[in-house]
Amino acid sequence: MKYNQNFFKLSGDYVFSELSKKVAKKRLDSKTEIIDLGIGDVRLPLFDCVISAMQSACREMGTANGFKGYPPAQGYPFLREKISQSYQRLGTEISADEVFITDGAKGQLGSITELFDKKIRVLFPTPCYPAGAEANIFLGNEVELMPTSRQDGFIPYPPPSKDYDLIYLCSPNNPTGATLSHSELKLWVDYALSCGSVIIFDGAYSSFVSGDLPRSIYEISNAKHCAIEICSFSKSLGFTGIRCGYTVIPNELGRLNELWKRRISSRFNGVSYISQRGAEAFFSPEGIKATQKRINFYKTNAEILKIALKNLNLWYNNTVCSPYVFGECPNGVSSGDFCDRLLDELSIVATPGTGFLKGGEGFFRLSAFSKREQILNASDRLRSLKTN
Amino acid sequence: MKYNQNFFKLSGDYVFSELSKKVAKKRLDSKTEIIDLGIGDVRLPLFDCVISAMQSACREMGTANGFKGYPPAQGYPFLREKISQSYQRLGTEISADEVFITDGAKGQLGSITELFDKKIRVLFPTPCYPAGAEANIFLGNEVELMPTSRQDGFIPYPPPSKDYDLIYLCSPNNPTGATLSHSELKLWVDYALSCGSVIIFDGAYSSFVSGDLPRSIYEISNAKHCAIEICSFSKSLGFTGIRCGYTVIPNELGRLNELWKRRISSRFNGVSYISQRGAEAFFSPEGIKATQKRINFYKTNAEILKIALKNLNLWYNNTVCSPYVFGECPNGVSSGDFCDRLLDELSIVATPGTGFLKGGEGFFRLSAFSKREQILNASDRLRSLKTN
Repeated sequence: MKYNQNFFKLSGDYVFSELSKKVAKKRLDSKTEIIDLGIGDVRLPLFDCVISAMQSACREMGTANGFKGYPPAQGYPFLREKISQSYQRLGTEISADEVFITDGAKGQLGSITELFDKKIRVLFPTPCYPAGAEANIFLGNEVELMPTSRQDGFIPYPPPSKDYDLIYLCSPNNPTGATLSHSELKLWVDYALSCGSVIIFDGAYSSFVSGDLPRSIYEISNAKHCAIEICSFSKSLGFTGIRCGYTVIPNELGRLNELWKRRISSRFNGVSYISQRGAEAFFSPEGIKATQKRINFYKTNAEILKIALKNLNLWYNNTVCSPYVFGECPNGVSSGDFCDRLLDELSIVATPGTGFLKGGEGFFRLSAFSKREQILNASDRLRSLKTN
Repeated sequence: MKYNQNFFKLSGDYVFSELSKKVAKKRLDSKTEIIDLGIGDVRLPLFDCVISAMQSACREMGTANGFKGYPPAQGYPFLREKISQSYQRLGTEISADEVFITDGAKGQLGSITELFDKKIRVLFPTPCYPAGAEANIFLGNEVELMPTSRQDGFIPYPPPSKDYDLIYLCSPNNPTGATLSHSELKLWVDYALSCGSVIIFDGAYSSFVSGDLPRSIYEISNAKHCAIEICSFSKSLGFTGIRCGYTVIPNELGRLNELWKRRISSRFNGVSYISQRGAEAFFSPEGIKATQKRINFYKTNAEILKIALKNLNLWYNNTVCSPYVFGECPNGVSSGDFCDRLLDELSIVATPGTGFLKGGEGFFRLSAFSKREQILNASDRLRSLKTN
């Protein structure tokens, strides 16, 4: 059988699959309740305004006049328009025609590279969420990992080499929490424009941005000439189980918008009407209020976890725009060993930094996407950890 | 910009995109109501049992205990188990572990080829639904089209050459309606086993099969050693707007099941819980009854359309397991010209056979997925068509 040989270039198991197998095993062995701060999955119920929008969409689908067949492959105009307006509030112009509704960011991080020739060179500042890099390896592209450093707070800076066709940037970064300022993001836009490369901007955590930092790469002038932005409702609206996000491909970006339309016409049939009506609630006054409250709640969770690490004298990346706490393992212990200890001794699941590729060794990620009680319990348990 | 050069090997526009542009233009110009028998999209409301399952899933997602985050990438066990049992009723063993829940068949027809090396040789008996062939061209594979003939009722038979790595079969076929018998399908299974190729069996219309014909390729012995089956709830449950289907990759098929699990772990985040709960209703007594009634309704629609063509002395493929009527244009007129005439003179939308690739010229497809009134109106209008 002529298998895609790129499979065999990937690690045996995807980091979160491996983690969940380990947790499942521990659950069988252990009497203590496991606190899962591993995978970045939300745990709190959907907002009332979302539920009622989706229920009403369900009802419509059961009536002769309200029934909807194939969704437009690009997404319903009602949702694309709302997204376009949200960019206007950031002071930038993105037309509904440049917005593509998707079934989430993860798939897009890989599929979007189908716009380009095989064997392109792709740069990933790391540590980063591994799905995009794995998809590129799997699709036969040449992937280069560029580790950022603890000293820089994991902020990535453009490299000297100008040989990259694609550059993946994630800000706020998963897992490090590093969030690019306007001037730092401008360095990347200028770099991409100067070498004719395209930035894939992973904005999955943009709702966590506060203060004067950019929420979108399009807040940087000329970014529409060099950047695709991939966004998600997963971490803001809690849509990990609903599957809806969006991708922006500006008309200024060569023929990419047109080519992506051609691609989805034969390879995609759009996103559930019900999911899209649910996502629309993100832009309603109730949705905006509920989302902001939820994000603040997660940020407080993250602060509680940081205090726990501080009490243990562990270093962590002290950022304020992220639902993750990226901490350093004590005494040069490896990520894998330290996460095993957290699981074995405290029944706390953390993700080893090595799951986030180069530069992740020696670090671990805690997810703040939990109920408050679990965060507080984790915090209590951490007090008993011996770190020296 | 290093564009994927395969884009430029595709026709300028996907057949159904082109068709819908033409229809939109006609709608502006015309006072007569347009009867759209073009794209194979369902038009009747979802069943009560589906709506109530989805509404209840919505409610769950709004509660602390019922909320669900990321769905399992392979799909929820409750749905995979039901699908596994449905194969048992066909007298074949497919375990839940071999079933992958998807967001529909269209995307799968392309993505599934990522299991294989680039530059594989792929055979498509035609006329066929164009998405699979386009996806293969787009992904850089070598596509060979093998036209079936009107004389054979468009039934495909294995070719003399044994050089194909993948073979796409669709039965009941879209657009021709040709449905393989057990012995015809066995020819293909034997052929694939003898040359080590893999069959991608497109079973999107399997619910339309009646009588003694096979609903699944796994009804043929040893097919698990050579076939992947791609299925959909779109045309049975009316799920074109909900997006849920499934793909079977048997454990007997080399390492493909294992590799596909690895692929989706980093490139897919599963299907909406709400959609999966809706799909589950397909296997309930109410769901089974309602689906059968709906399919019979569409089949009657198809029969009405056939009578209309018969009255015009037009040849059509007289099959009984399909929601489509595949007819021959009169007097050697081209597909494009004849469909334009239907639209211009009768305001009826039909899909030109040429949209279904090689061998489609000279034919047209009418979709029976319509309200009865529209089918009867189309039938009335067709009486006035001059065909000689």
